[in-house]
Amino acid sequence: MQIGVDELKQVTLQVLASSGYPPDEATAILEVLMYAQLRGNNQGVVKLIGAGMPRDKAAKAISIAKDTKLSALVNGGKNTGMVVLSYATDLAIQKAHEHGVGIVGTNNTNTSTGAIGYYASRVAKQGFIGLVFAGSAEFMAMDGSYEALLGTNPLAYGIPTAGKPIVFDMATASIARFGIVEAKTAGRSIPEGVAYDAQGNITTDPAAALGGAIRVFGGYKGGALALLVEILTHPLVSTSPDATGRKTDWGNLIIAIDPELLADQDTFEARVSAFIERVKGSHKLEGVDEILVPGERGDRLLEQAESSGVVEIDEALWSALQQAIK
Amino acid sequence: MQIGVDELKQVTLQVLASSGYPPDEATAILEVLMYAQLRGNNQGVVKLIGAGMPRDKAAKAISIAKDTKLSALVNGGKNTGMVVLSYATDLAIQKAHEHGVGIVGTNNTNTSTGAIGYYASRVAKQGFIGLVFAGSAEFMAMDGSYEALLGTNPLAYGIPTAGKPIVFDMATASIARFGIVEAKTAGRSIPEGVAYDAQGNITTDPAAALGGAIRVFGGYKGGALALLVEILTHPLVSTSPDATGRKTDWGNLIIAIDPELLADQDTFEARVSAFIERVKGSHKLEGVDEILVPGERGDRLLEQAESSGVVEIDEALWSALQQAIK
Repeated sequence: MQIGVDELKQVTLQVLASSGYPPDEATAILEVLMYAQLRGNNQGVVKLIGAGMPRDKAAKAISIAKDTKLSALVNGGKNTGMVVLSYATDLAIQKAHEHGVGIVGTNNTNTSTGAIGYYASRVAKQGFIGLVFAGSAEFMAMDGSYEALLGTNPLAYGIPTAGKPIVFDMATASIARFGIVEAKTAGRSIPEGVAYDAQGNITTDPAAALGGAIRVFGGYKGGALALLVEILTHPLVSTSPDATGRKTDWGNLIIAIDPELLADQDTFEARVSAFIERVKGSHKLEGVDEILVPGERGDRLLEQAESSGVVEIDEALWSALQQAIK
Repeated sequence: MQIGVDELKQVTLQVLASSGYPPDEATAILEVLMYAQLRGNNQGVVKLIGAGMPRDKAAKAISIAKDTKLSALVNGGKNTGMVVLSYATDLAIQKAHEHGVGIVGTNNTNTSTGAIGYYASRVAKQGFIGLVFAGSAEFMAMDGSYEALLGTNPLAYGIPTAGKPIVFDMATASIARFGIVEAKTAGRSIPEGVAYDAQGNITTDPAAALGGAIRVFGGYKGGALALLVEILTHPLVSTSPDATGRKTDWGNLIIAIDPELLADQDTFEARVSAFIERVKGSHKLEGVDEILVPGERGDRLLEQAESSGVVEIDEALWSALQQAIK
């Protein structure tokens, strides 16, 4: 069904208010959720239904645990990941403006940061190259194993161009954990080959997969990329394990790099745009109508939503979202 | 067959001398080639046979085109990529020692840098996190296309640990271009699904693949990673196209980051090592004897070669290498 973008935002803000978020935090979270929702990314308002994402009652003010000219380590004070990583993004941008590079890590956050392309796009909109890495709890097995030790470990980049930034975000997992949760809720099976059950058998049963482990994408290459994200979002940012030694603290790392460190900004952006045009104009495989560059599909959906003022939403999701206002 | 490591090094140095390299450059190249050769990586001395890698007669001294506290753009003066990226690695390490971050780009280089894990490992041995990106000429098609526009665009990382660094290097291509050249020379076919012919048909004929395009690894995710590497190794480092607008100048980017920007070095390294131990001890899939972390297989081969003083080498390769001394 179609609903008004403004109405969707109002309802989302009401859900966030009734989930315990003060207005400034609700606004920050709304931006992340709308980035995903209006671009057709599955990390949108669906996060607010079911168990939702109630504010941690023990949350304290965000603080800076370590600070240098180029870097900061942010103690999230158990605030929600979206609020903490938004804060870290501002800080990384500020440091890149002042010194050319900003590297900011976060720990002690309350789970998901949502679609991390959002933070990368904010960096790229400032004219900087953005790299974002997000850790999570123990959901995914290393290549060769079926024991969940790694997070699903997404990474994202944002690149400024002469037009819109190029923004890409991907899990190093072969399926998002959220996709498995959704399948279980809907009574659907999951695709073949993306997860193991607790005994190490490939399974299409989402319940068995949740008790087992997600597979990395792309075999050993995906496993090695997942390990890099793991190291950057846990040991490097000093997340704390829980009392049993398991990871429950979701760390993040964001890096902003000023292209002027190496190039002339305008020339760099023009050359990126020219290369993108060349890629888009390259010979297409049979059955391919258009070569889309990272972020392009989402950008179009967003433009459509912004110009029409309405957006397509699943009816059951919209109903559940309204019911999530307590 | 087995030959002495010292003998292999001596012959390699002789080939390099007869390829026009002065002793300091030959030593730098030898290190890169031996890193690959002794670790079982296919970017070793095979690069010196056949057309080999003669020194460009027009090569000039390496110079610095742009310099900031944190960064430098290196004009390679048409020197071989291995010599130029070694120089850039030293510079990135020096800047990271002084300021916490070093970001060095190269352009105007003479083709391949060899196994880029080598440069990442040098950064990691200094206690820094190393990221290395290498551009190349137009060999690979974007996901959805069959026109060669991208390089095979490898990336590498190096991470210091309490023991040996973790070093990983991978092409974002589904096969190295060199693997296709090797197959053609040997009269072998290439694996199904890794390359297109000039008409966009999947081909297993290496000659057709060389006239067509290599496929990215991992579908759209691999394509997006390849695009990132492309942007970091061409527009960002100001490579020059040739007179027809095609890329013939292979750029590189190396980034060194001091973990002390965010963490305590020893704690960081100990935590990385502890996580690696956990991964290695995790439940193995049936048929998997051991879970190897990135670089581990190569490290073992290198240790074996160093302790025994001998290394396994293909007889035809050894013969061709000796004949390459002019």
